[in-house]
Amino acid sequence: MTSYTLGATLDRPYEDTVRAVRRALDDQGFGVLTEIDLRATLKEKLDVDVAPQIILGACRPLLAYEALQVDPALATVLPCNVVVRAIDENTTMVEAFNPDVMLGLSASVGLGMVATDARERLTAMLMTLTEEN
Amino acid sequence: MTSYTLGATLDRPYEDTVRAVRRALDDQGFGVLTEIDLRATLKEKLDVDVAPQIILGACRPLLAYEALQVDPALATVLPCNVVVRAIDENTTMVEAFNPDVMLGLSASVGLGMVATDARERLTAMLMTLTEEN
Repeated sequence: MTSYTLGATLDRPYEDTVRAVRRALDDQGFGVLTEIDLRATLKEKLDVDVAPQIILGACRPLLAYEALQVDPALATVLPCNVVVRAIDENTTMVEAFNPDVMLGLSASVGLGMVATDARERLTAMLMTLTEEN
Repeated sequence: MTSYTLGATLDRPYEDTVRAVRRALDDQGFGVLTEIDLRATLKEKLDVDVAPQIILGACRPLLAYEALQVDPALATVLPCNVVVRAIDENTTMVEAFNPDVMLGLSASVGLGMVATDARERLTAMLMTLTEEN
């Protein structure tokens, strides 16, 4: 089974990694449309403590448009979430939703190229982060 | 195969449906953490015209917290997207990401109850909208 995430673990503090992820997404043509500070949200709503983590909703508009042309219901899996989560003070995990999962959800013809393009860009982003590390 | 969305088609104009979906989500204990006006975004970024549609990122904090305790990688499929899309002037489609999809992605034990609770609440929301219609 394809893993539903693409991930990398970096020897890098959380805040620094969040900045690096934003830059690497931008380099791959992804804009960040949404942001959820999960730690702050869960603290506020439930008064529980979780590791520092943020969900960045990444979108490459052309890919999103192509996906929606193929299957409008794919809006329910957009934007592509990239999660940055602190493991400890100097270790941070970056995980992106694997666009190939879309191929298992929607039987629509023509989705393969869109998913592959998105996956390759996200993989390149993770590669950049790993090389910088 | 389980459909990856839960949906309802309503005889109701778009703007009115968006308001009704917000109310129905609130009734089911979901807050809206993110919003993407897809039509405006794609117009701005690509100068293309798509039907009026919005992605509402719905989150019930307790369910999100429980899911993350079971498998932190599930942050990549949070919040649960609810998409409202105009079909024509008086017809609107509401589609939510089916939380049961999580069970196919993550093999983690203990996710079943979380997914079921989320699915039942989203189904109840759609039922409310259908009954109001």
